[in-house]
Amino acid sequence: MIIHDISITIEPDMTVYKDRLEKKPNLITTRDFNKSTVYETRLEMDLHTGTHIDMPLHILPNGSTSDYWDIRNCFTRCTVLDFTSLDADRITAADLKQKKRFLQQGENDSWQGKAVLLKTKNSFASGFDFNFVYLAESGAVYLTENQIKGVGIDALGIERDQSGHLTHRALLGSGIWIVEGLRLDQVAEGDYVLVLMPLKIGAVEALPARAVLLTADCMKLPYIL
Amino acid sequence: MIIHDISITIEPDMTVYKDRLEKKPNLITTRDFNKSTVYETRLEMDLHTGTHIDMPLHILPNGSTSDYWDIRNCFTRCTVLDFTSLDADRITAADLKQKKRFLQQGENDSWQGKAVLLKTKNSFASGFDFNFVYLAESGAVYLTENQIKGVGIDALGIERDQSGHLTHRALLGSGIWIVEGLRLDQVAEGDYVLVLMPLKIGAVEALPARAVLLTADCMKLPYIL
Repeated sequence: MIIHDISITIEPDMTVYKDRLEKKPNLITTRDFNKSTVYETRLEMDLHTGTHIDMPLHILPNGSTSDYWDIRNCFTRCTVLDFTSLDADRITAADLKQKKRFLQQGENDSWQGKAVLLKTKNSFASGFDFNFVYLAESGAVYLTENQIKGVGIDALGIERDQSGHLTHRALLGSGIWIVEGLRLDQVAEGDYVLVLMPLKIGAVEALPARAVLLTADCMKLPYIL
Repeated sequence: MIIHDISITIEPDMTVYKDRLEKKPNLITTRDFNKSTVYETRLEMDLHTGTHIDMPLHILPNGSTSDYWDIRNCFTRCTVLDFTSLDADRITAADLKQKKRFLQQGENDSWQGKAVLLKTKNSFASGFDFNFVYLAESGAVYLTENQIKGVGIDALGIERDQSGHLTHRALLGSGIWIVEGLRLDQVAEGDYVLVLMPLKIGAVEALPARAVLLTADCMKLPYIL
């Protein structure tokens, strides 16, 4: 039984988007054993720090908030696609089509209703890479055509503030959720079950989350207990 | 297929422990569509607000931190015990023994390796009840003797700052994890799978978490996909 933890650790010196200081988390000790009988901490954190899910409101002015996140999305069949050998700095429709052709020779020939997780060289970076690999608009459109349920990437953004945020718009506008800030270095290309559990925060544009992958031999829960 | 969400919603006006203002979360909008092309929020929150897991360091000066939380604890068989008709304000060893006797007539006669979730009238309270039902030290000792893996309660504390925190000590000192801030009003007594996924925060004494219960007919993951 294997559970792959694909979440980033939240800690004060963690890597944050574009190294912006205001995105760093603070952990403030509010009680300790010098003056109290308990130890307690307060967390200050940008909702887009670490592993998190973007809600439509993040990019779309009339987009829905976390109140509309469906709890059934917490358990999703998913496919990890390995783009670590990609030379370019973005994943296009053509790149995804190549993977699709490969997969169609195997048992799992459809991405419909699944999550697709994009593994790139980002998973092996230490520190923030301003040239991180992202999902091009054409790739996002191709994924919507394939009727996927959600998409994840091992970068703190699924694009790099491209003008118009067209990758976000294509996905969020089609009801496809986006999980950013995954760490996929320990995970091989293939099929898994994604268990993606966000904090239950009301009416916000993003949710910090814990994400794990269960291997195919864990498809029956009794085996993982 | 049923997924019961047993987590509390984190929002500014939520109920917090003993109505302490410093435990209320703040959600601060850092970017919006008036001045930006994205919407972003920063969260400020006590780690013991809402649904969360206590680590040993919360009570034990040399106790371990979140760094030692085992990812395998995210998936646990569990039994919900219904104490909503309890007259007293605390659950004792005698109360638990009565439930044990009842359960031993059924198929699942052991709590060993399971989580035990305590459903009380707390789940039906609106606002903070200073007389909330808690787990007495004798109850905690009895659960350790039964070698449970973890215990959860539908209160923001598993005890009410009792002198010496003996309930916490009995549990955390025996390596039993504690999840506080559950909401069990929609859940009947019986057996489930508890999926308990905390945020991955490094080196802290508590972890905010999302908790859901899967019903027995979901024991095979393909059925819940």
